Amino acid sequence: MPTVTMIGGGQLARMTHQAAIALGQCLRVLASSETDPAAQVSADIVLGSHNELADLRRAAQGAAALTFDHEGVPLSHLQALEAEGVAVRPPSAALHFAQDKLAMRVRLAELGLPVPDFADLTDAGSDARARFVEFGQTHGWSIVLKAIRGGYDGRGVWLLDNRDEALSVFDEQFGAGVGLIAEQKVAMRRELSAMIGRSPFGQGAAWPVVETIQRKGQCAVVLAPAPDLSDEVAEQAQQMALRLAEALGVVGVMAMELFETLDGELLVNELAMRPHNSGHWTMDGAVTSQFEQHLRAVLDYPLGDTAARAPVIVMANILGAETAPEMTMDERLHHLLARMPDAKVHLYGKGERPDRKVGHVNIVGGDTDSPATVRERAERAAHWMSHAEWTDGWDAHA
Amino acid sequence: MPTVTMIGGGQLARMTHQAAIALGQCLRVLASSETDPAAQVSADIVLGSHNELADLRRAAQGAAALTFDHEGVPLSHLQALEAEGVAVRPPSAALHFAQDKLAMRVRLAELGLPVPDFADLTDAGSDARARFVEFGQTHGWSIVLKAIRGGYDGRGVWLLDNRDEALSVFDEQFGAGVGLIAEQKVAMRRELSAMIGRSPFGQGAAWPVVETIQRKGQCAVVLAPAPDLSDEVAEQAQQMALRLAEALGVVGVMAMELFETLDGELLVNELAMRPHNSGHWTMDGAVTSQFEQHLRAVLDYPLGDTAARAPVIVMANILGAETAPEMTMDERLHHLLARMPDAKVHLYGKGERPDRKVGHVNIVGGDTDSPATVRERAERAAHWMSHAEWTDGWDAHA
Repeated sequence: MPTVTMIGGGQLARMTHQAAIALGQCLRVLASSETDPAAQVSADIVLGSHNELADLRRAAQGAAALTFDHEGVPLSHLQALEAEGVAVRPPSAALHFAQDKLAMRVRLAELGLPVPDFADLTDAGSDARARFVEFGQTHGWSIVLKAIRGGYDGRGVWLLDNRDEALSVFDEQFGAGVGLIAEQKVAMRRELSAMIGRSPFGQGAAWPVVETIQRKGQCAVVLAPAPDLSDEVAEQAQQMALRLAEALGVVGVMAMELFETLDGELLVNELAMRPHNSGHWTMDGAVTSQFEQHLRAVLDYPLGDTAARAPVIVMANILGAETAPEMTMDERLHHLLARMPDAKVHLYGKGERPDRKVGHVNIVGGDTDSPATVRERAERAAHWMSHAEWTDGWDAHA
Repeated sequence: MPTVTMIGGGQLARMTHQAAIALGQCLRVLASSETDPAAQVSADIVLGSHNELADLRRAAQGAAALTFDHEGVPLSHLQALEAEGVAVRPPSAALHFAQDKLAMRVRLAELGLPVPDFADLTDAGSDARARFVEFGQTHGWSIVLKAIRGGYDGRGVWLLDNRDEALSVFDEQFGAGVGLIAEQKVAMRRELSAMIGRSPFGQGAAWPVVETIQRKGQCAVVLAPAPDLSDEVAEQAQQMALRLAEALGVVGVMAMELFETLDGELLVNELAMRPHNSGHWTMDGAVTSQFEQHLRAVLDYPLGDTAARAPVIVMANILGAETAPEMTMDERLHHLLARMPDAKVHLYGKGERPDRKVGHVNIVGGDTDSPATVRERAERAAHWMSHAEWTDGWDAHA
């Protein structure tokens, strides 16, 4: 059976390895340390850095495809590997748009996909600040400043709502040489995610569109499928993601994060060309998990069935607490399993730090469970695992 | 998180490792070779032999529990480890009954569990043959001869139906020093399997009882739950398995293989105190898989929900063909995935040899699918993977 190499040894690689085992494979992982989540569990680990072309080359040797746990690999290295015949998937030409928020915004706008109003602030000349001020005024200073590269889980994103604060953050970041764009803050009902898979052959498959709930700038909870979303809007979101993946030549799974505005319109927020937190529910809630689908896609296998296995599935992240509970993670797990025999727990083998994603819980609802009921259980489980305290639902820690 | 050591690097260890990853663990495996199915995929491999106490000791070091992929570990070694404080699970006192078919039969009869009529042929004296003849005559020479130790997948089991053949096999095996028992051949409707999990604390949990279809003496297909089985008989089978596990002090998962006689009675056939082929359907068809449950049980975690996720789930083994197809396994997989996007394939990383179990396929039926429909698809998928030829169902290769 073929070998797939994944660059980066985080939880996404760890869970991709689980899926690889079923397909008769062992995932090869380029990890920075033997204690990385994926390096703890895979038999095929290459230690090295994703910033070193030589390490990437070692990891790619003999692999049928090279793919990613994160977006941090320098594009020039990937282009070099492609020139040497390595099957980089997604290809560098597509990955570019996941690495560069400005290029993504420009390309999306060119393709006619709905995006929030934005301003390019990368001009090295003196007029970037003037453009920022003009953009801020246009939007009543209700804006978002974003680093074009390297941001994730709330890092590199500044939610702003007054002129003084906005200019202070701009001056600091621009002064430090950070490439920036500004975006209007969208008056939204909620955030959605449309996940799809696409193979080099061109086959595409979309999972049900989900609702994502963010806390402190990172995904906390996912409701699958998104409650009370019309079939029409859901299909529109899926079609947008599939069309974009086609236009950009994406291979693998892709998450398109969306805003649903107060008017019920969709706007594209972010793209991720890899397994994504908004797809973790698929591990227990869909016929084909995002991790299996990613492997199938990068190997140009036919894609798997993306149907949900139940009417409601809720995923909640287990986050490191501000103050680590006295009870060990193992003890907390004992208690959770006793209380919720149907909870599906996924732990990443990571040390606990405040707000760090160290695992997640999936609750698959029964035929008559409401989204609110299933969500309450998932949040209660995740909160317990994070804090070793039981709550009566999510309002208690919203 | 704790470390569990599994003795034996076969597919059961490979799939247990998959389950371990979700629980934040990495399964440590005592494997005979780096190419063993589990050794290909786990990061924590101890190379050695299950017959060497020193190797078992190395593998057990620092582990929270020691458990098994097969029944072949010498009991005296396990007793030595237990004396040294190793948590052997199931304990040697229970495993004894899975290793020794005579002890199992005698103990089951003592406990009042229904078993086929049997005869102990281990007497070193001259009357074993006379007893065999008497037993054969009593049952009209429709009997089964079994090696007391080491048989599996049809090996060490002889189905006999005439006196001359029976005596010839007896003389050959008895003469070679093989410990034997004889059993009546049961006039049966079908074979069933009742799988349960049991923790040291004493918690027990039973999956739905399944029907198993054997070919050439080994499990080929599993229908979950067993079609047209009354709730009463199903519960009786579950209770028998739970009571027996309690009485023997079993820890982990246990399969109790049963005959359903033409009169609708149950008789206990075999026991396995480990994940079992008749439980592979749980990977995609139950809330908690047998592999996760086995880990939970040996670690004395609370057990998981054993409910089926669908009304019908069918598992079919992928077996090596007499003549290996020209098409590679990878090519066959491509075709299968194209034809059945919902098939869940599990490959073990094993070379193909005639009738060797090299993987399995699970098909999870929809709400309106009949067992026959789902079975036809599972058998078609497995037959394709084995032979690279499509059939119209299981009749074609029964």
